[in-house]
Amino acid sequence: MPLQYNEFYNEQTGLTIGLKKLLFSEQSEYQLVEVYETDTWGNLMTIDDMVMLSERDEFVYHEMLAHTAMFTHPNPKRVLIIGGGDGGTAREVLKHASVQHVDMVEIDKTVVDASKLHFPGVGDFDNPKLNVLYEDGIAFVKSVQTPYDVIIIDGSDPVGPAEGLFEKDFYQFCIDALSDDGVLTAQTESPWVESYYPSMKKVFYALDDLFPISKMYISYIPLYPAGMWSMACASKQEDPLGDDVQKRISSSSDWLAGLKYYNTEVHKAAFALPNFVKEIISR
Amino acid sequence: MPLQYNEFYNEQTGLTIGLKKLLFSEQSEYQLVEVYETDTWGNLMTIDDMVMLSERDEFVYHEMLAHTAMFTHPNPKRVLIIGGGDGGTAREVLKHASVQHVDMVEIDKTVVDASKLHFPGVGDFDNPKLNVLYEDGIAFVKSVQTPYDVIIIDGSDPVGPAEGLFEKDFYQFCIDALSDDGVLTAQTESPWVESYYPSMKKVFYALDDLFPISKMYISYIPLYPAGMWSMACASKQEDPLGDDVQKRISSSSDWLAGLKYYNTEVHKAAFALPNFVKEIISR
Repeated sequence: MPLQYNEFYNEQTGLTIGLKKLLFSEQSEYQLVEVYETDTWGNLMTIDDMVMLSERDEFVYHEMLAHTAMFTHPNPKRVLIIGGGDGGTAREVLKHASVQHVDMVEIDKTVVDASKLHFPGVGDFDNPKLNVLYEDGIAFVKSVQTPYDVIIIDGSDPVGPAEGLFEKDFYQFCIDALSDDGVLTAQTESPWVESYYPSMKKVFYALDDLFPISKMYISYIPLYPAGMWSMACASKQEDPLGDDVQKRISSSSDWLAGLKYYNTEVHKAAFALPNFVKEIISR
Repeated sequence: MPLQYNEFYNEQTGLTIGLKKLLFSEQSEYQLVEVYETDTWGNLMTIDDMVMLSERDEFVYHEMLAHTAMFTHPNPKRVLIIGGGDGGTAREVLKHASVQHVDMVEIDKTVVDASKLHFPGVGDFDNPKLNVLYEDGIAFVKSVQTPYDVIIIDGSDPVGPAEGLFEKDFYQFCIDALSDDGVLTAQTESPWVESYYPSMKKVFYALDDLFPISKMYISYIPLYPAGMWSMACASKQEDPLGDDVQKRISSSSDWLAGLKYYNTEVHKAAFALPNFVKEIISR
């Protein structure tokens, strides 16, 4: 039997990934960060035995989390990423010509180190517009002086250091750290595991209470539990489903053609929720 | 270590499902049909070690395969299902008031027997409008005399008895067996395993050559490889994305509210394909 990695999300049900070898393993101050070479997914990063990304499927998560926020804002110049240590979200954000400055606040330097070493195609760490800080994201957001146009919450699962990123208090700090037309996106776990931990409901209720516009959207991520992943989009002014957003996406068709997942239709379609998903967030 | 079921779709990568016990196992004339009680997915049917359905997630596949075809046709009265032995597709078809007669042609009676015994909530086998035939689907379609309004290809994977359901010849027989405004849907595997067997491309090219309108669509099925599943919709007259289709779906909102996945927005959104999926079927 070859070496295998298992992430079970329902008792003994979940994903099994064939491994070739362990490339990196470090118990940081916060968590166990590991990188494996896999059979068919390129390199794979896990944190505390939960899948973070593979080279083969990371494009889905990063494109959907970044571009949904970036195109919803009319002219995003200053962007804050909480978490996102692998660098993939920043890479997508930096494709937008309007961007002048990106702060990426990752609590764990080990994640960035592992990514630089073993995911060379994922990050864009040499980009002069990118400023990486190794700090606690929640404390950072509390102390923001100059507001951001876009905040992206790219944390890991709601156990361990990322737990606070699913709490309403945190989103209150975010709204204060956003400009008057600010937009926020956040990863909110899978609707299929919602009964184990109510991530979607918690984050959606918080955003729905705090922001004028808040909507959930979904995308297909093969190596995340059940393959169906939810994200939240909250906005002070612009509706992510507005005509202006569609126009902005269409007018970027030159570089958007180079993406592997996100496009004009996918942006809109991602917000169409199946009935059982709607029910999870109904109030 | 508890009993587990593995379906690997990329070397050693795939799904692992926790099992409680084996409920049914029969090597039929065509294939090995088994039913397990699982940890959290209810009962699970496998054919030749490939997942067919679980009680917990079957609604996605059956709603998306059936209603996409049924609402695209303006007034579906006669429906043919090829395969579909578990009965779930017929159950969804029979929810449409216009339906007068459904022929379900399943090659393997063992699948129907297993479903009646262990998936009591899936089939609607006592419905007087449903006629079940145990015959080869391809031979049946070749010999159709009275045309059907809708044909649904609900076969298993393209190995074993269902292999012919992915061939162009078969779809030529289907077009001949459809009425002048006929509509067809078919399951076409996951875009993430397309490099192992080109199901999507084969079926889409065939339909694109034969039908005036042919489109691919996708849905989230947790227990199928990668969680992203593709289906094809081909039509002689009506566009599945036309305004009339949206009107028909909206006017059925009474019973549609009882579905768990399909709704007006999901119908349309399912046809929005990510860039890498578009590329698979580009000619």
